[in-house]
Amino acid sequence: MKKDFKSLKETCFRSNRMLPESGLVLHTFGNASVVDRERNVFAIKPSGIAYEKLKPEDIVIVNFESEVVEGNLNPSSDTRTHACLYKAWKEIDGIVHTHSTYAVAWAQAQKDIPVLGTTHADHMAIDIPCTGIMSDEMIGGDYEHETGIQIVECLRKKRLAYQEIEMILVAGHGPFTWGTTADKAVYNSIMLEELARMAYLTLQINPEVPRLKESLIRKHYHRKHGEKAYYGQK
Amino acid sequence: MKKDFKSLKETCFRSNRMLPESGLVLHTFGNASVVDRERNVFAIKPSGIAYEKLKPEDIVIVNFESEVVEGNLNPSSDTRTHACLYKAWKEIDGIVHTHSTYAVAWAQAQKDIPVLGTTHADHMAIDIPCTGIMSDEMIGGDYEHETGIQIVECLRKKRLAYQEIEMILVAGHGPFTWGTTADKAVYNSIMLEELARMAYLTLQINPEVPRLKESLIRKHYHRKHGEKAYYGQK
Amino acid sequence: MKKDFKSLKETCFRSNRMLPESGLVLHTFGNASVVDRERNVFAIKPSGIAYEKLKPEDIVIVNFESEVVEGNLNPSSDTRTHACLYKAWKEIDGIVHTHSTYAVAWAQAQKDIPVLGTTHADHMAIDIPCTGIMSDEMIGGDYEHETGIQIVECLRKKRLAYQEIEMILVAGHGPFTWGTTADKAVYNSIMLEELARMAYLTLQINPEVPRLKESLIRKHYHRKHGEKAYYGQK
Amino acid sequence: MKKDFKSLKETCFRSNRMLPESGLVLHTFGNASVVDRERNVFAIKPSGIAYEKLKPEDIVIVNFESEVVEGNLNPSSDTRTHACLYKAWKEIDGIVHTHSTYAVAWAQAQKDIPVLGTTHADHMAIDIPCTGIMSDEMIGGDYEHETGIQIVECLRKKRLAYQEIEMILVAGHGPFTWGTTADKAVYNSIMLEELARMAYLTLQINPEVPRLKESLIRKHYHRKHGEKAYYGQK
Repeated sequence: MKKDFKSLKETCFRSNRMLPESGLVLHTFGNASVVDRERNVFAIKPSGIAYEKLKPEDIVIVNFESEVVEGNLNPSSDTRTHACLYKAWKEIDGIVHTHSTYAVAWAQAQKDIPVLGTTHADHMAIDIPCTGIMSDEMIGGDYEHETGIQIVECLRKKRLAYQEIEMILVAGHGPFTWGTTADKAVYNSIMLEELARMAYLTLQINPEVPRLKESLIRKHYHRKHGEKAYYGQK
Repeated sequence: MKKDFKSLKETCFRSNRMLPESGLVLHTFGNASVVDRERNVFAIKPSGIAYEKLKPEDIVIVNFESEVVEGNLNPSSDTRTHACLYKAWKEIDGIVHTHSTYAVAWAQAQKDIPVLGTTHADHMAIDIPCTGIMSDEMIGGDYEHETGIQIVECLRKKRLAYQEIEMILVAGHGPFTWGTTADKAVYNSIMLEELARMAYLTLQINPEVPRLKESLIRKHYHRKHGEKAYYGQK
Repeated sequence: MKKDFKSLKETCFRSNRMLPESGLVLHTFGNASVVDRERNVFAIKPSGIAYEKLKPEDIVIVNFESEVVEGNLNPSSDTRTHACLYKAWKEIDGIVHTHSTYAVAWAQAQKDIPVLGTTHADHMAIDIPCTGIMSDEMIGGDYEHETGIQIVECLRKKRLAYQEIEMILVAGHGPFTWGTTADKAVYNSIMLEELARMAYLTLQINPEVPRLKESLIRKHYHRKHGEKAYYGQK
Repeated sequence: MKKDFKSLKETCFRSNRMLPESGLVLHTFGNASVVDRERNVFAIKPSGIAYEKLKPEDIVIVNFESEVVEGNLNPSSDTRTHACLYKAWKEIDGIVHTHSTYAVAWAQAQKDIPVLGTTHADHMAIDIPCTGIMSDEMIGGDYEHETGIQIVECLRKKRLAYQEIEMILVAGHGPFTWGTTADKAVYNSIMLEELARMAYLTLQINPEVPRLKESLIRKHYHRKHGEKAYYGQK
């Protein structure tokens, strides 16, 4: 009894289309996916298709083993990274990968993006982590799956909760972001790019500037995300 | 006897909409307000609402104690900062807060923007001040009100007149600008962002360049703002 | 016997409108003028008028003493600088002044823009000169006229022909460009901004890079401008 | 017996129009060409014509000796460089030359662009080479032909295959790209500009960052280009 994936594909299509509209991707680079937790499948961009030619029906449905469930095209070559994260983290419903310029520059520089101001602290109370460079064993193995493992392990080692950070830089590669919805994952990619750009400029102006002090970080993070948050509408 | 705030809301709406059109804000960041000095209320953007979805009727009217006078939505979380400035400075009618990229970079770098050229001197004869980082007491207290206090005190200590400088960087946070009208406050935010960008590039090209000499600063400032100003139309 | 300045005003209007369209000016900054050599007058932007509100009939006609010949608005506050250049240099018919970002950064950095590549050499075989900072006497005198004198003297001292360089940076202020037509002056402002940006990036990547070697500079300049030029159409 | 070059001209026209649409060229700068291998001719942009005024019938057809076969305008002054490359490299069908900002900055800085991340490695497993500065003999000789010779020799000395690198920086000048089609050559120019920008930012953030490790470069290059490539659709 085949179920209808039309709505899932359309959500995924819209999220993917937001990437070039936000200036985050060039050519066929990047991909967004959306999960259906009830059916244990996710929708993802097909591999190597230009965004301007993408149609909702081109979106590929795959299961958590990265096998195609529905669709005529090959799914993104990063599909196994997405699958790995959906399996490891039960509370996320969307993932985005881009090669946006400033986030990639920090990933290539192999550096965490430090909290330097409240724009960052409004979203996270911690530095945006950058993984280490992948080992030759992982590169030579199931590479895209290992990229997912690397992301999960990086957060675990740094004792960071994926519900709180929602973004990471894979060293020498680029950013992955996620969220409780695909829209939130796209939002996070846009925000990461701007935080990466602000941090870059800040350190060019004053290389000696310290990380923002903890009390100010906590204040901004909690006014948006704490139990007593008072930012936004109820 | 309830009065009509329609015109005040529309002015405030238009000022807020100018922020994304000028490239100064991302997502829901930033806010513009407009005061009605006769009724001692001001109109301000609701908290956490995206600019492209904002409607004139969403604008919130609050009094100088930051209590909602009219409106169904929560006002901006920065409302008490605006209230503090309107109470302290009788000659301003509009305030704008953004997280524009270059101004934030200088605020995060915790540095004043020096007068390096006539583009700056056409607007102000002084460096654009950056406050210190807020004390833990202020952060732990009525934070947004204290931000206003911090701004007022910074100008007072540096013996700067708010009628002449019309912009400030809050350290680790970002810019606030104001003016005799909301339009002027928006203009000042746009100008600040460009001055921040020019000063950044100048110091990258020549880190040793001195502040512009005082006679040239005075000449440019006074041809636009002095008693014998001859810039513009009468 | 009053003559018709309609055509001169329209040419001047079009040149001024090209400045915001090319991203060279913010707000009311900058101005373009066009000369009528037969009548010894030039058309120039009115002072402090926003480009988007500018109409052809707003353009002001002034003579070489900077006196208004026709028009209801005050001419640009930089009018006497334009007049000075038109009087000194008989072979130019258009002048443009902007506060474009990268050109201003070099002017504020008080540095000549060196010839680092063929994009520059295609236009000029020499560095783009930056004047010294104006003396207090000149600032305190007829400032805008003195700015023109400063430009003319800077070229004279460096033994540069205004027919060959067509652009200059006024230290601590910004760029002026000129040309045999107003269109050429606008073209030069666009080109200067791009050369300023390229030189900035080049020196960020490699601060030690030498000036382009003379034989290559000469080759590119002469293939476009020499007697045996073979670039373009006849 | 005159043959019809209509289709060749239209392909060349479209490729040239993509350059300003992609933000790679200013004014009349840059040029794209497309070869017809059966007839040993290629279509190229006319010299010094603005892109917005360019029409398909303006495109010039030349043979491999750079002689005009059809067309009323002078071909690009870089025609002999294109001819040299088409003769030397039998497997390319399109060539693009631009003065795009970041690629020119690296060319002017006279530095290879190192492989710093997977965005680069997805396209090439090697640094993007920058030639040396041309000798006075070559500059004084048949300059545009010698530019072609310089490009071919640079790849030969570095033992690089033109089928694998598809782009080069000519020192002090700017980028040339090529490909098996004109579209691919344009794609390569866009990609080169983004790689140049990413590498610039990376080294500003961390001047000490090493080249990406070889195993990771190889992995990304081969998943898109190797015999077992699995990126894209079949």
